[in-house]
Amino acid sequence: MPLKLFELVGRDAARPFSPYCWRTRMALAHKGLSADTIPWRFTEKSVLVPYGSERVPVMLDGDRAVVDSWAIANHLEDAYPDRQSLFGGAGGRAMARFINSWGDIAILGGISPLVLADIPKLLDQVDADYFRTSREARFGKPLEEVMATRDQAVIGFRRSLEPLRQTLKAQPFIGGDAPDYADYIVFGGFQWARVVSPFKLLEETDSVYAWRERLLDAFDGLARKSPGFPV
Amino acid sequence: MPLKLFELVGRDAARPFSPYCWRTRMALAHKGLSADTIPWRFTEKSVLVPYGSERVPVMLDGDRAVVDSWAIANHLEDAYPDRQSLFGGAGGRAMARFINSWGDIAILGGISPLVLADIPKLLDQVDADYFRTSREARFGKPLEEVMATRDQAVIGFRRSLEPLRQTLKAQPFIGGDAPDYADYIVFGGFQWARVVSPFKLLEETDSVYAWRERLLDAFDGLARKSPGFPV
Repeated sequence: MPLKLFELVGRDAARPFSPYCWRTRMALAHKGLSADTIPWRFTEKSVLVPYGSERVPVMLDGDRAVVDSWAIANHLEDAYPDRQSLFGGAGGRAMARFINSWGDIAILGGISPLVLADIPKLLDQVDADYFRTSREARFGKPLEEVMATRDQAVIGFRRSLEPLRQTLKAQPFIGGDAPDYADYIVFGGFQWARVVSPFKLLEETDSVYAWRERLLDAFDGLARKSPGFPV
Repeated sequence: MPLKLFELVGRDAARPFSPYCWRTRMALAHKGLSADTIPWRFTEKSVLVPYGSERVPVMLDGDRAVVDSWAIANHLEDAYPDRQSLFGGAGGRAMARFINSWGDIAILGGISPLVLADIPKLLDQVDADYFRTSREARFGKPLEEVMATRDQAVIGFRRSLEPLRQTLKAQPFIGGDAPDYADYIVFGGFQWARVVSPFKLLEETDSVYAWRERLLDAFDGLARKSPGFPV
């Protein structure tokens, strides 16, 4: 039975944009697995109730529903041990937890105020309204106001990438000579930004830019071929 | 032939304080290895010239000199493969590179302005003068001025630990159920601070505080027994 993956989309069902879903997409490709996508939208919470989740990704593997990108990566690693490892051993799996947290905080938290107000443009009205209301409650101001200073804010975001930049002086990927789940964690955020916003996150001279290019090209251009803005 | 380790000290030769040397000390203990310490002071650059280094740690393993804490960790892992692994596999070794960079930037870079002016107090005059001159050139102002705002600055430092805090919600160490080199990278900075300064970096209710306690207790209290201030 093929794997099934609920993925966040907007008006265009073929334009998945969730950073967490992109972590999973890349992880599946790394394992040489494919999944049938089930497009899912912000306001379709009821669809996920049977799986005990309110958000995506949710992956169905036979009878089993796996909820949350981190849990899915672990499930793929454990359920498909003969395929290319996502973590490169127990140490990598544990350390990827830390990188997952850094990815959530520095990457997703850093990118969010730079692209947020571009997201409703991709959504149907009901989802756009939900997105705006829930996120404006979180930020305490209109999305456009959060994003108004992005030309300045992006400088701080670029500075926050310094640990990644230092790593890339020594090796082409966080995973070493080849990418692994640690890379997909971080890349998911950049791909999210690329799909939802024309805003330029990185300068072309940045080693992080070159790293992102390598991941856009990975798996026969999986991420680059998916609809999005040029980077 | 026993291992030899050049370690940074000040007036008290039995009070090693370099965060990089502490990464190495913990790595040696993890491998069940011991090294004879060769106390080294900031202005003794000429002593290290034969090893092609200007700073410590420098480790001598037989005929071989290994320079830099990251290189030493890798040497220990490769030269003593039958002992407890520092990285838990190839994935962990690659990802630890990233954590090493995060440790240098967020931890050492974050702690430095909070403790800097306390360091000369531990040094002989010639080293204190060297330390002050070189660091004041780097910061562009007196050390005391850098440190004057530490009661405010520590709040930002604590906030920067959030990726570690999130990780510790899932597991007791960055290395998982037990500490590994990823933990020692980060802990080295905290131990440095403990040895050189009475300043309180962490609140007792912080999960990072509890994690630090566990590492202070590791290897029969290796780090806690070394001279320093109470935390």
